[in-house]
Amino acid sequence: MTQSLRIVVIVPDPLLADEQEHAEQQLERSRSLRMGLLEAQYDVVATLPADVFLHERIAQLHPDLIIVDAESEARDALEHVVMATRGERRPIVLFTNDPDTTHVPDAVAAGVCAYIVEGLSPQRIRPILQVAMARFQHEQSLRAELQNARDELKDRKTIDRAKGILMQRQALSEKEAYDRLRKLAMDKGVKMVQIAQRMIDAAELLG
Amino acid sequence: MTQSLRIVVIVPDPLLADEQEHAEQQLERSRSLRMGLLEAQYDVVATLPADVFLHERIAQLHPDLIIVDAESEARDALEHVVMATRGERRPIVLFTNDPDTTHVPDAVAAGVCAYIVEGLSPQRIRPILQVAMARFQHEQSLRAELQNARDELKDRKTIDRAKGILMQRQALSEKEAYDRLRKLAMDKGVKMVQIAQRMIDAAELLG
Repeated sequence: MTQSLRIVVIVPDPLLADEQEHAEQQLERSRSLRMGLLEAQYDVVATLPADVFLHERIAQLHPDLIIVDAESEARDALEHVVMATRGERRPIVLFTNDPDTTHVPDAVAAGVCAYIVEGLSPQRIRPILQVAMARFQHEQSLRAELQNARDELKDRKTIDRAKGILMQRQALSEKEAYDRLRKLAMDKGVKMVQIAQRMIDAAELLG
Repeated sequence: MTQSLRIVVIVPDPLLADEQEHAEQQLERSRSLRMGLLEAQYDVVATLPADVFLHERIAQLHPDLIIVDAESEARDALEHVVMATRGERRPIVLFTNDPDTTHVPDAVAAGVCAYIVEGLSPQRIRPILQVAMARFQHEQSLRAELQNARDELKDRKTIDRAKGILMQRQALSEKEAYDRLRKLAMDKGVKMVQIAQRMIDAAELLG
């Protein structure tokens, strides 16, 4: 199952490196990471620079996981990736040697699932990615629960307003108002909250 | 700030190790982990075995972070720690060499914040703990939001039921019923949801 994960690797732009030697180290590091992924039978669908086209490319490739390989410019690379995944959250694993960890809380809040400083060996890649996926799925399920609770609250507010209108205007009990709304929704084959919203709109129009 | 984190380290019981050599390796590994923590100026308040007294001891020590040092028996050690922190969630970092990662999703759902297989060097300890704390706090804030949304929904259901009773029995509009409840709550110096609950109880008693 894990083997079929579609992975996009984001690499620093070698043209931006300040020294030739640094650029070569970076390339070597990046190569060994990709080798490790391929050895572990992951499917690296693309290797992309962290630039302004990232959003579009990620939207086209829809990877299951994004690996950011940012040797020392973790903050900049992350900013691009976070912008690029704003519309749709995806698990992000950051590999960096950047000793500055002041932006760790921001990275975590932005959805970065692991943050491994130093010591990346190929045999460590699989458990890191497994933890990242598990974390991401766990957080997504928490977020889904939160969204459900908020939606339920919003729908309830709408339905209650409509019920209130019915109760007051037609002197119905709460249960009668509720049953009326439910029957209307069933007759029209729509959700109660939609009927409720139409009733509120109509009441506002009619004053 | 990070330096003052109170840490409890959970170690495997050396008496349970199957071989003398294994037990010594375990002790050595455990010692180097604790050395690394002390060098990084963390405050290790206790080192405890993963046994049935763990719950009580953790409740007494109320650590900011729990490190589980489980060389190869990750599943068993985790079970004890998860049981022991059931009442109050705490960040848990698991260090293990156990190659079996099938229980990773369970560990994550149980609140384990990092899961580092292999390659623990002292200089990697600080960023690992920082990520674990950041993750924990991020998840706690998500959980708090979820709890708030659920509480709000529950309170709203109670207030709406009370409002419905007032609207029907006293032929009030929704707004009038709401204002009545609010005034009652203010007069008695309690929350609206409490007045609402009393009204529902009274209506049930009076039929």
